[in-house]
Amino acid sequence: MIAKPDGFHDECGVFGIWDHSEASRLTYLGLFALQHRGQESCGIVSLNDGQHIHHKALGLVADKFKEPHLDRLKGRAAIGHVRYATTGENLLTNAQPLTAMLGEGPVAIAHNGNIVNAQILKKELQGEGAIFQGSNDTEVLLHLLARDKSKVFEECLMRSLARLEGAFSLAILTKDQLIAARDPMGFRPLSLGKIKNDQGGDSWVVASETCAFDLIEAQFVRDIKPGEIVVIEKGGIRSHWLKEAPRKAQCIFEHVYFSRPDSVVFSRGVYESRKNLGKYLAKECPVDADLVIPVPDSGVAAALGYAEESKIPFDMGIIRNHYVGRTFIEPRQNIRSFGVKVKLNPMSSLLKGKRVIVIDDSIVRGTTSKKIIGLVRAAGATEVHLRIAAPPTTGPCYYGVDTPSKNELIAANNSLEEIRKFIQADSLGYLSVQGLFNAVRADSETFCAACFDGKYPTKLYD
Amino acid sequence: MIAKPDGFHDECGVFGIWDHSEASRLTYLGLFALQHRGQESCGIVSLNDGQHIHHKALGLVADKFKEPHLDRLKGRAAIGHVRYATTGENLLTNAQPLTAMLGEGPVAIAHNGNIVNAQILKKELQGEGAIFQGSNDTEVLLHLLARDKSKVFEECLMRSLARLEGAFSLAILTKDQLIAARDPMGFRPLSLGKIKNDQGGDSWVVASETCAFDLIEAQFVRDIKPGEIVVIEKGGIRSHWLKEAPRKAQCIFEHVYFSRPDSVVFSRGVYESRKNLGKYLAKECPVDADLVIPVPDSGVAAALGYAEESKIPFDMGIIRNHYVGRTFIEPRQNIRSFGVKVKLNPMSSLLKGKRVIVIDDSIVRGTTSKKIIGLVRAAGATEVHLRIAAPPTTGPCYYGVDTPSKNELIAANNSLEEIRKFIQADSLGYLSVQGLFNAVRADSETFCAACFDGKYPTKLYD
Amino acid sequence: MIAKPDGFHDECGVFGIWDHSEASRLTYLGLFALQHRGQESCGIVSLNDGQHIHHKALGLVADKFKEPHLDRLKGRAAIGHVRYATTGENLLTNAQPLTAMLGEGPVAIAHNGNIVNAQILKKELQGEGAIFQGSNDTEVLLHLLARDKSKVFEECLMRSLARLEGAFSLAILTKDQLIAARDPMGFRPLSLGKIKNDQGGDSWVVASETCAFDLIEAQFVRDIKPGEIVVIEKGGIRSHWLKEAPRKAQCIFEHVYFSRPDSVVFSRGVYESRKNLGKYLAKECPVDADLVIPVPDSGVAAALGYAEESKIPFDMGIIRNHYVGRTFIEPRQNIRSFGVKVKLNPMSSLLKGKRVIVIDDSIVRGTTSKKIIGLVRAAGATEVHLRIAAPPTTGPCYYGVDTPSKNELIAANNSLEEIRKFIQADSLGYLSVQGLFNAVRADSETFCAACFDGKYPTKLYD
Amino acid sequence: MIAKPDGFHDECGVFGIWDHSEASRLTYLGLFALQHRGQESCGIVSLNDGQHIHHKALGLVADKFKEPHLDRLKGRAAIGHVRYATTGENLLTNAQPLTAMLGEGPVAIAHNGNIVNAQILKKELQGEGAIFQGSNDTEVLLHLLARDKSKVFEECLMRSLARLEGAFSLAILTKDQLIAARDPMGFRPLSLGKIKNDQGGDSWVVASETCAFDLIEAQFVRDIKPGEIVVIEKGGIRSHWLKEAPRKAQCIFEHVYFSRPDSVVFSRGVYESRKNLGKYLAKECPVDADLVIPVPDSGVAAALGYAEESKIPFDMGIIRNHYVGRTFIEPRQNIRSFGVKVKLNPMSSLLKGKRVIVIDDSIVRGTTSKKIIGLVRAAGATEVHLRIAAPPTTGPCYYGVDTPSKNELIAANNSLEEIRKFIQADSLGYLSVQGLFNAVRADSETFCAACFDGKYPTKLYD
Repeated sequence: MIAKPDGFHDECGVFGIWDHSEASRLTYLGLFALQHRGQESCGIVSLNDGQHIHHKALGLVADKFKEPHLDRLKGRAAIGHVRYATTGENLLTNAQPLTAMLGEGPVAIAHNGNIVNAQILKKELQGEGAIFQGSNDTEVLLHLLARDKSKVFEECLMRSLARLEGAFSLAILTKDQLIAARDPMGFRPLSLGKIKNDQGGDSWVVASETCAFDLIEAQFVRDIKPGEIVVIEKGGIRSHWLKEAPRKAQCIFEHVYFSRPDSVVFSRGVYESRKNLGKYLAKECPVDADLVIPVPDSGVAAALGYAEESKIPFDMGIIRNHYVGRTFIEPRQNIRSFGVKVKLNPMSSLLKGKRVIVIDDSIVRGTTSKKIIGLVRAAGATEVHLRIAAPPTTGPCYYGVDTPSKNELIAANNSLEEIRKFIQADSLGYLSVQGLFNAVRADSETFCAACFDGKYPTKLYD
Repeated sequence: MIAKPDGFHDECGVFGIWDHSEASRLTYLGLFALQHRGQESCGIVSLNDGQHIHHKALGLVADKFKEPHLDRLKGRAAIGHVRYATTGENLLTNAQPLTAMLGEGPVAIAHNGNIVNAQILKKELQGEGAIFQGSNDTEVLLHLLARDKSKVFEECLMRSLARLEGAFSLAILTKDQLIAARDPMGFRPLSLGKIKNDQGGDSWVVASETCAFDLIEAQFVRDIKPGEIVVIEKGGIRSHWLKEAPRKAQCIFEHVYFSRPDSVVFSRGVYESRKNLGKYLAKECPVDADLVIPVPDSGVAAALGYAEESKIPFDMGIIRNHYVGRTFIEPRQNIRSFGVKVKLNPMSSLLKGKRVIVIDDSIVRGTTSKKIIGLVRAAGATEVHLRIAAPPTTGPCYYGVDTPSKNELIAANNSLEEIRKFIQADSLGYLSVQGLFNAVRADSETFCAACFDGKYPTKLYD
Repeated sequence: MIAKPDGFHDECGVFGIWDHSEASRLTYLGLFALQHRGQESCGIVSLNDGQHIHHKALGLVADKFKEPHLDRLKGRAAIGHVRYATTGENLLTNAQPLTAMLGEGPVAIAHNGNIVNAQILKKELQGEGAIFQGSNDTEVLLHLLARDKSKVFEECLMRSLARLEGAFSLAILTKDQLIAARDPMGFRPLSLGKIKNDQGGDSWVVASETCAFDLIEAQFVRDIKPGEIVVIEKGGIRSHWLKEAPRKAQCIFEHVYFSRPDSVVFSRGVYESRKNLGKYLAKECPVDADLVIPVPDSGVAAALGYAEESKIPFDMGIIRNHYVGRTFIEPRQNIRSFGVKVKLNPMSSLLKGKRVIVIDDSIVRGTTSKKIIGLVRAAGATEVHLRIAAPPTTGPCYYGVDTPSKNELIAANNSLEEIRKFIQADSLGYLSVQGLFNAVRADSETFCAACFDGKYPTKLYD
Repeated sequence: MIAKPDGFHDECGVFGIWDHSEASRLTYLGLFALQHRGQESCGIVSLNDGQHIHHKALGLVADKFKEPHLDRLKGRAAIGHVRYATTGENLLTNAQPLTAMLGEGPVAIAHNGNIVNAQILKKELQGEGAIFQGSNDTEVLLHLLARDKSKVFEECLMRSLARLEGAFSLAILTKDQLIAARDPMGFRPLSLGKIKNDQGGDSWVVASETCAFDLIEAQFVRDIKPGEIVVIEKGGIRSHWLKEAPRKAQCIFEHVYFSRPDSVVFSRGVYESRKNLGKYLAKECPVDADLVIPVPDSGVAAALGYAEESKIPFDMGIIRNHYVGRTFIEPRQNIRSFGVKVKLNPMSSLLKGKRVIVIDDSIVRGTTSKKIIGLVRAAGATEVHLRIAAPPTTGPCYYGVDTPSKNELIAANNSLEEIRKFIQADSLGYLSVQGLFNAVRADSETFCAACFDGKYPTKLYD
């Protein structure tokens, strides 16, 4: 049974730091480095004298956090969160970290992932009188914690997490602990690092991606393991373990598109994975042409790999305009492919008279690919061959990546040739699922590629 | 005699359109495409029923112009302007287009360039009772026009322009004409295009760079020529000519750095010029290494050229974060090279153990280059060779590019070896001036390379 | 046992309307008329197709609600709330109406008053796993409702309200009812009115004060009675009753200061009450003088009454500046009594050489009164006699009026003569408690005057 | 010949201070006290080291000036300006003080009044090449100053002022002087005061009204006299004199309505004048009634005078809501007299069954008076008698008060009985012109009452 995606399965980034004089400032930097994981809202909660201080806002970290906010976020520990753009009312209610005052003190939670049995738990909890503020699945965890009778927070947490199914990489801040947790299948990444603090000791840090460590000059120590609950407190660091899952399900899409190329995710360099995707793609889908060009910025690494493997020259044949903001006024009279054009401009001086291979990371609905191909052809290319550095996207994700529903996914409903015709390419090629696994040095026992192969690792609820 | 740069010699972008039902909307798009030429302020003046309507603001085009502004900017003709970031009070006064009510009607002027005899003319005009509102050199032209006794605007304009020395590419809107003018030496670019209008006819458009034409799907017709004054009015288009200059002085720096790579400037593709700069650089300054990497985004094309010529593999070894805004809060405790790091992250997975050639477009003060080299080395590179795809910058520009003073330019005051030591590179190489001319297919009779070779084409005033 | 005031005992205003095509617009107007009851936050919830739509904001109604907000607040029923200024973090969380999704549908609550046993109930509910979002005592009611097992909302409500002690005048909106409720002692006012709707029928409206009816041209029908729960729904209107209280406790301070003079509160005109307070004050505390002047605006009615009774001429001897906003920059160098002076300017042309009686509604800490007397004296008055149109304020309020703690109340800790000396008046007089009851035509069995006489009508919790 | 009012004849307030360590802060306070004279824009220019620093903004002083602005406005001298609300584009250009860099240094001008020959001078100056930025008549003075060849600013100023006809009260700041000037007829007020400075000496201050002195605890010294130019500089204070006018023309409307009641204007207390207006009105237009009520706030003093003279009881029968802002959303369905009702609420408890005399300061178009009378009647008054504490307004003002054109003035085009019928009053009475002069202790040789008696003291231009 396949659940309907409802628009609240978002991708996010989390960060946490323990025992550092600049906890909130480093969290701010960490979130800034993770900004690509979510631009809708951002928030930081710091811990000062057993009390939580928080600031959350809709928008980008660098816009919404200013000196006075960080000055107010006192304390030597903090967690932060960035959230993916979506629509709907009252979004600030859904901004994270979520906070609540439980019997034992304040709790703040930053969550990346998606709980697949959230609706079932929510109904059960509402039946018991629980009041939900937002539409966020993370709130379920707060209510489970609140109802647990144990006085020891770690016990409450272990019992509550055990009831959750699906994807969760969490940074949790209590009155005296920073806790990092990853679900037993390990869907979303979560890394542990350390940084020298002002007292000459080590501060522990956790982050969704290692690029956050790079910016603050923290050292990457290791990944939090699937099912591991790392408790960081005054006395040191220790781990609990959730019940082991029959398989792991690390998200391969993090390597295909989502993570920053300069991150190390699931212990693999993302840039290398992407370049490999291009190389395998060149092997699987060769074509005689004059030029390999990427759709910038996401296709650059794969295009370099494709060019390297195929020995066809590489060039930045499409220039990207980085001034594009959230909203943009279109002219009333039609400009062909305006939405794409405002971001991407193919150079006719380079493309005129050439047979061109365009490398992109995915085709979702097909409309954008069609526009890009049209622009490249209008710029003078005699042939346009589209190569996708991933397999056809045939299913939505239920584990924390916002995806269109199955009937909107062009590859779920059309043959390769039908897609090629629709996007008006001279030829079209996708990487195979096996090629994908090879490129990322992954396998189907430890990685989830459900959006490509339909093998969903958990039960799904309607 | 060398004038002291005073901070008001800014780079800018101009746009104009005549006889189109969406004049202000297309101007908005044109300015958006030219945003890289100036981020301090933006403005549009439209012509409706012989009256001017204007909106000017500090900030980016996409932030400051919204539907209601464009709805208010009625009319079938408009000009617009973007202005480079600088500091100082009361900046809106300096925002362009400048407007005034002259005897014959309203005049609006958008100016890219710098008038070198502005201070002399200003003093003369003040002696006659002229009141200046801002510190903008363009205001001088308005006052010259206001004092001319002729009733025919074109006559006033020809006489007034004849008194200006230096650089001006202008879009001027009167009550019944759009005028595009370029100084006799042709310092700054200005192109003429056309676009189909709602009545099936052609609308004339002018823009600093052709990338503005691409976005609105206008067709590039030709450059406005040095010394040409193009008058566009109801009856059609015609040209006047200012007295011919002994030489031309088209700015070679537009090809090195300033223009967008997808523009055609001075009838040459900018991306090709940059790639050529890399190729000539590889010939002039070879070095044995494992990897060529660009400082993104400006060094990418040259690095591709260098790699192609040298046969050394190319990779995007430094990842750029595009979320960086105007202001950013630094941590209090020192993070090495923070200002660079927040934008650029070298990938150790790629660079570790490699001998790396880093390609950049220039070294100004040397501090940024030093930081980049430090970060690349910290990421594991065993050797770091910096190659600059231009000659050493030894003099400031007085023709509309904001540059530091001579004593701040590291290459004006130090030998190659001194610079290399300061930036801590294993080796350092610059392109020669002749290599520069070759790469851009330019020559010293028609192009200005004064910032590199000190051959200033005009008299300079203290 | 006297509870410590904790800063969350605020005064507020509520409004509700049922079955009107402009429900949210009339709620906006109603809140605007009630703005004096709370300037911190404002909010409206409307009911459309069984769903709630809401908009809440920090600030004034006329600043925070614009056309698009009201357009969005569709539906034929709505409730609204204004909240008193206080300090503290995250105020929007405390803004009302509070909303929640209960088992039977959405519930929104606007509350004026203060629940004295809120902390006890809160601890009990937290023990059962309830999560509280804000520090608002109203949230307790939401949780009680959520835990009640009945499917009939009215039953849940009656049971939940029965558990509350203290002051509550409520407007509640469910998916199909507007409910107005007043606690059994009737601390805070709540009136019922009606207005013709677009279909020729009557719309029921409820409001904290009748001035809200005046603005929208609704007709005042009657007060909601102490202990009455009025249910308004499609079928009509009916009442339930909470268990009768041994006495009533309508807040006499509403007549002394809080309500608008043009309201009818507890079936008495407020302006008349205030004028009577001045008359009784003149009888009880006469003094030979030349002029009676009010501290504007609150002292005007009482001063008119005092002048009428005493036959001493009345004049507006102090002019009030209405441009004063929330924040104001003080000069660095001392200006005597600046904080008062920026609002009030005594006119020396009127006061010079006169023996002046100043009428005010209260002395809280004494510092403001001292400044006013100093300014009046500096303006040339030869004698300054302060007369307070109420008894000495000796105790804090626990029923919804924000008051300082007992030790900050000058009258709670000093004799009349000590206060007179502190404020430097030539004489000082207060109205007696009996004079107060007489002036308002009230008695100690149906009105609460605890802040004056210490007779708190409920148990108080620490 | 009567000129058409064009919407730029605005009322304003000016302030200036010399030699005080808190010059800009005291100017801020002075402008705050003068806020009633203009709410459109506000501005301050300070003098620091021979340079001007300025901040101007659209809006209220307390909203637009914050600590950082005042910190930046360094220096021991400053002038400021508030400007009346009007409409039109690009208002900031018209905001004052106007500033310019003349040959001898910076000049800033704050102007209250209106130059009647401004258009004639403007055309003449434009013919000579002057460029005007705004539509402000004050700019003419700047251009006259700029064209004067003398090196001594005082000489330029005397010659330039001599060319102006009409009303000007000016505060001018140069690089080394504060100059206060008043036109020879003395239309608008301007007062001189002093305040102790930080060095134990006296700082000179000038202000449109003395209420500005009260707030900063400056001492009122005397009025600047008609035709007097007071020069304040390091060496002290001295006066120049413009050619004497055949008569004076101090604006009597300042006493009727414009000035604050607590100001002393033209050496007369405004509150006393208004009370006298009420007394004379009671003598001239008695009527048998039960109650005298003012239209608040402007009618309060006159109503007190009327009640005192007539022995009829006074009451605040209409309550004013001070929360009303600039914009307000009206309900879609008609509420009778909404625009008035949102500000004013007549109390039926007081008015029911009474014969009421309503006192107001003027009837302009008649529509507001009609609404007020309607509301008072709806509140239960059996008779409503309107008494205006001024003569009928029959002509516009050309000297700095924004007034409707003659054809919009109900009294210019209708008989007393026609007006009474239109506004639906039981009776209507105005004060006579002679009564007005008597009440203000003024005469037709030294005061202008042209808006009432049509005797314009200057030539008027079309």
